[in-house]
Formats: sequence, C-alpha cells, structure tokens
Amino acid sequence: MDKIRRNERMSAMMKILAASPNRIFTLNNFCELFGTAKSTMSEDVELLRGMTEAFDLGRVETVTGAAGGVRYRPTVSRDKAREYILSLCEKLSGTERVLPGGFLYYSDILSTPDIVHFMGEILATQYYDSEPDFVLTMETKGIPVAFATADALGVPLVIARHSSKVYEGSAVNINYVSGSGSIETMSLSRRAVQENQRALIVDDFLRGGGTARGMVELMREFKVSVTGMAFVMATASPEKKRVSGEKALMTLTVTDGEPAEARVTPSDWLL
Amino acid sequence: MDKIRRNERMSAMMKILAASPNRIFTLNNFCELFGTAKSTMSEDVELLRGMTEAFDLGRVETVTGAAGGVRYRPTVSRDKAREYILSLCEKLSGTERVLPGGFLYYSDILSTPDIVHFMGEILATQYYDSEPDFVLTMETKGIPVAFATADALGVPLVIARHSSKVYEGSAVNINYVSGSGSIETMSLSRRAVQENQRALIVDDFLRGGGTARGMVELMREFKVSVTGMAFVMATASPEKKRVSGEKALMTLTVTDGEPAEARVTPSDWLL
Repeated sequence: MDKIRRNERMSAMMKILAASPNRIFTLNNFCELFGTAKSTMSEDVELLRGMTEAFDLGRVETVTGAAGGVRYRPTVSRDKAREYILSLCEKLSGTERVLPGGFLYYSDILSTPDIVHFMGEILATQYYDSEPDFVLTMETKGIPVAFATADALGVPLVIARHSSKVYEGSAVNINYVSGSGSIETMSLSRRAVQENQRALIVDDFLRGGGTARGMVELMREFKVSVTGMAFVMATASPEKKRVSGEKALMTLTVTDGEPAEARVTPSDWLL
Repeated sequence: MDKIRRNERMSAMMKILAASPNRIFTLNNFCELFGTAKSTMSEDVELLRGMTEAFDLGRVETVTGAAGGVRYRPTVSRDKAREYILSLCEKLSGTERVLPGGFLYYSDILSTPDIVHFMGEILATQYYDSEPDFVLTMETKGIPVAFATADALGVPLVIARHSSKVYEGSAVNINYVSGSGSIETMSLSRRAVQENQRALIVDDFLRGGGTARGMVELMREFKVSVTGMAFVMATASPEKKRVSGEKALMTLTVTDGEPAEARVTPSDWLL
C-alpha cells in the first residue's frame, strides 16, 4: 500500500475502535499500524472526536496517564434514546402482542441485533461511570441484551443458570422466591467470577423483583458488589419491587378488558 | 457544522455501515446526511472499499440494482481466522480446563464480547452466500455466539427453549434424543418464524448431534429449510454425527489419563 491518507487512517481507526468499545488503545498501536508520527495520530483522534460528537455517534475519548490512549464509547444521547424507545413502545403497545395471562410477546424485539445493540448502548451509557467488571444475567431471554450491554461496556457477560451443569464445573447454588411465588434455584459456576469484582445486573423483565433479588444474593455469595440493575421492561404493578435503584427502558401496563391491551411507555429517567 | 470533510464523511460512514452489518444503505441516505453530491459519495465508498481491503477489516461493497446501495460485511480472511482460532485453541488445551466426565470449561470464552464477535464473524463469512433469514440456536450457552453470527449476517436470532413458556405464546414442541440418550423436549413459539424461511443453525457444542438433529426436525415442523449448521466446538469422537455438512471452529479430544488433558485444534476447513 502507498502512503496512507488521513481519510483512510481515520476510517480504519474508527472501525477498530468501534469494534472493541471502551477498550483503551495506545496511540503507538495506531502509529505502528499506519506508519505515522504520534503528533499526526493525535490530530486524527481529535478529528474523530469532533466527528462523533457532530453526528451523535458516541464518543471518541483521549485517556491520559500511564495506561492512557484513545477509546470509543457507544454512548447514546438522551434525545436519541428517548426517540428510539418511544418508537419501540409504539410497536409493542396495543392488543396484538398480549398473551393469555396478561403477558406480552416481545421475544422478537429481544433478539433482533439492531434493536438489541441500541438497547445495550442506552443501558451501557448509564453505567460507564460505575465501572462494572462484568454483566450478570439469568438465562434465557435477557442474554442478547445483556451481551450487547457487556459488549458496549467492554466487559464479559456472566450467565446464571436454573441448575448446575456438568460442563460448568463446581457451582454455587442458591434458592430464591420467583415472581409466581415458587421456590427456584439459581446456579453459577465458581470459575465465572472473582471476589471483590463489581457486577451490573441486566435482564429482560422485572415484575416483582424476585429473580433480580436472587441475583443480588447470588453475588453476595461470591463477595461481588452490585453496581446497578437494568431491565428492558418493568411492569407498572406492583409499584414496589423487591429491589431498588433499578433502571428499565420501558414500563408495561396490561389493561383488563376484551381484548386486553398493552400500554408500553418509556420509563421516567428517559424523559 | 461547517462543510463536512472527506475524512469526517468516510469515518462516519464506516461507523454507520459497521453498526448494521449486511444492511444495504442507499447512497441517498448518505448524500442527505452529509449534504454531498452522489458522485462524491461514490468516491468515498470506493476509498472505503480499498481501505477495508488493505487493512483486512471486512468488506465494503457496492450493490447494484433497484434495491442497490452500499453495505458492510465483517468478513474474516482465512489467514486471520486460522491465526485467531489457533490462539484460542492454545488457551483451551491442557489440563486446567478439563472437568470431571471429560467435559471442557469454556463458558468464559463463549461470553467474552471480543472473542464472541470474532467467532460470529468467522462463521458468518461462511454463510453470506446461503442467505439465511434467521439464526436458530438452542438455549443457553450458544446464545451469545449465535447472536453475534446473526448480527454479522444482519438477521434476527431465534432461540429454541427446553419447554414452552407463557410469555412466548403458543408453541410447537418436539421430542428428541439428546447426546446422553435421554428424551428431551425442544419448544419454539409459533410467532418466531414463518413458513419457507431459511435457517442457519448455530450452537456452542456438537458431540453426537442429537440436539442439532432436533433443531433440524423442529425447522421441518415449521416448513423452514436449513441452509447450514455451525458450531464453536465439535468433539473428535464420535466421528460420525447424527447431522452432516456442519462446520465447527474447533475440534476437541480429551485424553484419558491422570490428569486428563484436552487437545483443541482448529477444524480442517480453517487450515
């Protein structure tokens, strides 16, 4: 390849940074890749910073200090988040998606990559400052969103199971009271996390908070602190959950009546 | 913002294209966003195409025809794929990860975003031409990799469950014979897929092929054809699986002995 031009350097750097969100790359990484002086790379980074800001495409940031360099965070502005969640709410509201028992069908939303990434980035934006070491979810439906959130935060995903599995090695099991009042088991491999780490809990649905409370207790067994709890959807009722400090993207009310109707609205913190 | 420069346009376009892999954007999308003439945008696209090729960062492609435009595919060259999988194999081989019963612990690998994305992109590279409408996986461990593959292909993920759930609506259940010889149930919501679609099956582990065979039969119930089957890991034994035409990234042999040792190697098609 001939001498690499600024437009090629910048677009390659944007691609590389965005593929590993929140990871710090040293300027030397890029100087070597492009055969460019550090001062030139600094200018490139500054231009990328301005570009991402101008187009509301997240943030390219310079990190100073010994472990310094440049990183990309796919942060979502509140305006963009609200607009997006509002359009999702419209899609989910109405009578068509209501199932017997007042449940809402939205598994399709929870596994469409574009939507899932955007939800993950909105949630991650709220938790960069709390610096979680990993994202914890409980199988099954929340896994894609939890993975997308972990991806945006640049940390691993940890998946708690309903029972211990031979291919997970020795595990810690706890019992918890589920939303329906039954006693359930939650299991996590001993190897999955380390003492004194910080967990962000992400799940698809919050009703009473039984499962979320179980995850908090599971983390206590591992001596891991919980830095936050985030959900795709929370029910309006019961208003009082068994956990507190949680953030949900949407709030769900299913009205009685024939046919039953779902009203889905963006949660307060997005407004 | 002042007049937008080429380096800003190109890096913004790279970011937007890469965030929605395999989706076709019309040039008009970008002309409007940047306030630029179509001929200028065509030059930008051509430069991006050259850049991604030069740095082995996937492919920016121009698609002609009525629904034409530009798209990004995060394809991985065979050299890069082999090198990456080789380093993963080294990490997984040895005695430390072997569990009682000859199982291998690699749940951490299956939920670390950087690794998972790369595996998903390697698998997607093999299946762009077969144009699947969705990726199918069976809960739980394969979900992140299946999601990353779906993401790279720009299609939804569909998750089969061990039993039907109230929040999935009416479902089709089938029974299948698992690897251990027991009869298991596999369930999928009626709403999840449509007749005559094409499915790519992605899962974390292939031993005898019982679960994979179950997924094929499940798709038959939905009148969906299977365009391919991909796995993160396949056991060397039994050599004959209950499915055929599958592609795995790695092959696993666990030797008898004290301690038992895992030998993990890249599968033949990567060499």
